[in-house]
Amino acid sequence: MAKSSRKDDLARKPRGFPDRRERQLALEHRLIRDVTEVYERWGFEALETGAIEYADSLGKFLPDADRPNEGVFALEDDDEQWISLRYDLTAPLARFAAENWMFLPKPYRRYAAGPVWRNEKPGPGRFREFLQCDADTVGSASPLADAEMIAMAAEAMAAIGMDEGEYVIRVNTRQVLNGVLDRIDARSDGQQLVILRALDKLDRLGVDGVADLLGEGRKDASGDFTKGAGLSKNAIETVLAFAQAQGDSRNATLANLEAVAGGTASGDEGLATLRQIDDALSAMGLSDTRAVFDPSVVRGLEYYTGAVFEAELLREVTDENGGVVRIGSVGGGGRYDDLVSSFRNEDIPATGFSVGISRLATALALAETGSENRIGPILVLALDKDQMADYFAVVSALRNEGLRAEVYLGASGMRAQMKYADRRGAPAVVIIGEDERAKGVVQVKDLAVGAEKAKSVADNTEWRESRPGQFEVSRDDLVARLREIVGAVA
Amino acid sequence: MAKSSRKDDLARKPRGFPDRRERQLALEHRLIRDVTEVYERWGFEALETGAIEYADSLGKFLPDADRPNEGVFALEDDDEQWISLRYDLTAPLARFAAENWMFLPKPYRRYAAGPVWRNEKPGPGRFREFLQCDADTVGSASPLADAEMIAMAAEAMAAIGMDEGEYVIRVNTRQVLNGVLDRIDARSDGQQLVILRALDKLDRLGVDGVADLLGEGRKDASGDFTKGAGLSKNAIETVLAFAQAQGDSRNATLANLEAVAGGTASGDEGLATLRQIDDALSAMGLSDTRAVFDPSVVRGLEYYTGAVFEAELLREVTDENGGVVRIGSVGGGGRYDDLVSSFRNEDIPATGFSVGISRLATALALAETGSENRIGPILVLALDKDQMADYFAVVSALRNEGLRAEVYLGASGMRAQMKYADRRGAPAVVIIGEDERAKGVVQVKDLAVGAEKAKSVADNTEWRESRPGQFEVSRDDLVARLREIVGAVA
Repeated sequence: MAKSSRKDDLARKPRGFPDRRERQLALEHRLIRDVTEVYERWGFEALETGAIEYADSLGKFLPDADRPNEGVFALEDDDEQWISLRYDLTAPLARFAAENWMFLPKPYRRYAAGPVWRNEKPGPGRFREFLQCDADTVGSASPLADAEMIAMAAEAMAAIGMDEGEYVIRVNTRQVLNGVLDRIDARSDGQQLVILRALDKLDRLGVDGVADLLGEGRKDASGDFTKGAGLSKNAIETVLAFAQAQGDSRNATLANLEAVAGGTASGDEGLATLRQIDDALSAMGLSDTRAVFDPSVVRGLEYYTGAVFEAELLREVTDENGGVVRIGSVGGGGRYDDLVSSFRNEDIPATGFSVGISRLATALALAETGSENRIGPILVLALDKDQMADYFAVVSALRNEGLRAEVYLGASGMRAQMKYADRRGAPAVVIIGEDERAKGVVQVKDLAVGAEKAKSVADNTEWRESRPGQFEVSRDDLVARLREIVGAVA
Repeated sequence: MAKSSRKDDLARKPRGFPDRRERQLALEHRLIRDVTEVYERWGFEALETGAIEYADSLGKFLPDADRPNEGVFALEDDDEQWISLRYDLTAPLARFAAENWMFLPKPYRRYAAGPVWRNEKPGPGRFREFLQCDADTVGSASPLADAEMIAMAAEAMAAIGMDEGEYVIRVNTRQVLNGVLDRIDARSDGQQLVILRALDKLDRLGVDGVADLLGEGRKDASGDFTKGAGLSKNAIETVLAFAQAQGDSRNATLANLEAVAGGTASGDEGLATLRQIDDALSAMGLSDTRAVFDPSVVRGLEYYTGAVFEAELLREVTDENGGVVRIGSVGGGGRYDDLVSSFRNEDIPATGFSVGISRLATALALAETGSENRIGPILVLALDKDQMADYFAVVSALRNEGLRAEVYLGASGMRAQMKYADRRGAPAVVIIGEDERAKGVVQVKDLAVGAEKAKSVADNTEWRESRPGQFEVSRDDLVARLREIVGAVA
């Protein structure tokens, strides 16, 4: 929009805080409703915490930040304590559960939906405020609680309209990886981190690239050299066998993982966890297509203490530039046994899952899936200023019958009013001028029919005279005829 | 809760940001749904802006603040500009409308629901974060747009369950008051402010007290003296006649106002506005009980530029201390013709209404109106650790039939599991032990029936043996019997 004056510059907003209009909001609300209905059906109860927490309740749990306030919006309260906008829904839940632990049913199962804020550099499709929808079970150490999260994540994907094969929940555990690291004797945190980062690049660099990063290092196309983990040839083979252990079924993957991580204490613990998860998933009827064990899932492994899960949409969509892209990750979670405990001298294990509602809405809007066909209100034209009371009486009668309707309240003439009806997506306009009043009738124009008929009418005069989609109706029949029109476009 | 260690102190939250659980959230969601359904039916479309705006988009419009950031949560963005959490939904709308004016249908009619934040001293029932639900018409100067807001406010009160007589929308205009001020020749801003503040105390101080404040001043019971507006006896009589002008109908009030404010330019303008509003309200069937003209409504008159409205609940409720209190104001609004224009070199008149959802929820929770009777999930007891897969299969079958259900995931025994079911409000528990497995049946315990029968059983042993509310059922009949139980308590 061209800036015409200094004053116009005042109408601006900070980057990364999108305004969302009808269509986007309808999509977000539908997604939240679909996902929370699943959470409710699985026995989770609603909890919403405030937007603001003490900074020390949040900052120290940021996965990748050394500085306490990095990545969050923080300010000093009037008592000189630092407070921050929540950056996820998990840390506030941990604070709530620890604060109220004595009074909660145990395990405590809650869900929440709401905005979170991240003070990061915004970019295309990357906002500083977005919606998440979480479920958490606090107070159960059982892998069955993890299995439930995984199955519920799959159910959530089904609930938002994804068919089997269009999504997958990928599952991994820290313990199996630890078993592999024990077996190859990679004990230092630094070396483990290099290995984790190498594994995260499997998709992009392929097996050879990752092998280089696990060994001496890798020179990329530009000539830049990345130092590797310095593993032996045998160790590299073991790590690669782990990374590629995914088989055709959860059982096949378990057998492959047994070969690379079995026999170590940590590996056996991780394998037992995955077996329990598999038993529960199978009992709940979760096919090998909907939930898989995937050792290549390493994102979040540093943060979580046990099982980790990622919900991925496999449907391909066409982006603005015509490129075909896979939607990818739309949610994730895992076991975080240390977070609630960090607020309280007591072991309080927990596990949870979060759906990225904003991310999902953006992806589905691109895919034109579930795009709600919004119909605007019926418009009663305001043709005679001295008849406004009558127009208000007519529109009231329509609303009392449950129809969405309004009187035009601007100061412009008929042409502008028809344009307004068009822009609002009105299904019909109601016209009451002098002639109609004299005859005790009203004119209704069906805008969808009118637009359709107009296509076959070449001449402007002919179009005006034929009045496509327009008909006369008695006041008594008005509601019934408008219902037909709204029903036809709905 | 007793603090048992330094660590527990970490689990704390800033004052004024309440955690809200199931019952409160259900009430808030119902209220938002009821009110937005009215807004939708009246032709308003959804818009949600971000939580954060530039401070200069908000601060300068705070009604009672000289300092730009007083009352808001503000922080410096990384580009060194000050940003703030929105303190209402109106200022962000004004920014949005000004920024996108060229591209919007005009008039632009939108609604929004969401949290707002005020950096004020919190207290009992006074929070720093609360929910509002607004509707606004931007781009119409017509009093008919105000009339629509008033009628819609009345409809919103009806939609949340208030009967006629339990609520009233009070309407006033700045212009009629200005007519009175012109007539008594009170021209200075300072004197006008003293008069406004005196009028706002009519309920509390009565006619004599206000008369003192309009004259020389008033000494209260403690001996403190408040300096008055220094009006003449005649002028005081005129202002009091204005303040008490409300008659039995909007028409009667108009006649009384005509007598005290008619004949001045501003007074006649205000009277014409009220007459147009009355015509539209009558055309929409708004009775004299649902919407009244009330000159004693002065709150907001400084901020708004034309008509002002207040939604008041008349229902009396009993507070925690057993006192009977009237709920009072649960929403308000008015015409604000200068706000959008302040962002743009163009006259853009606007009017709007805001329902205080949090305030309403608190009041209705006190009045026990609309308190949702929440039923928890059915609980499948986890009695044998090696049968968890079977319990998961059973609970899956229940959920697939649309029942809300969960398996107990804690580590405790049967007694704790029954207590958990009770705390969750479970309508029934499903018991599958060794005996039931051998017979291929399940035991169901109807907790409502059990609790009822337990009242008439004196002896503990007798109670255990009679197993009140408990019955055996085949697996095939389980869903049907549980449906009956859930249906009976719903």
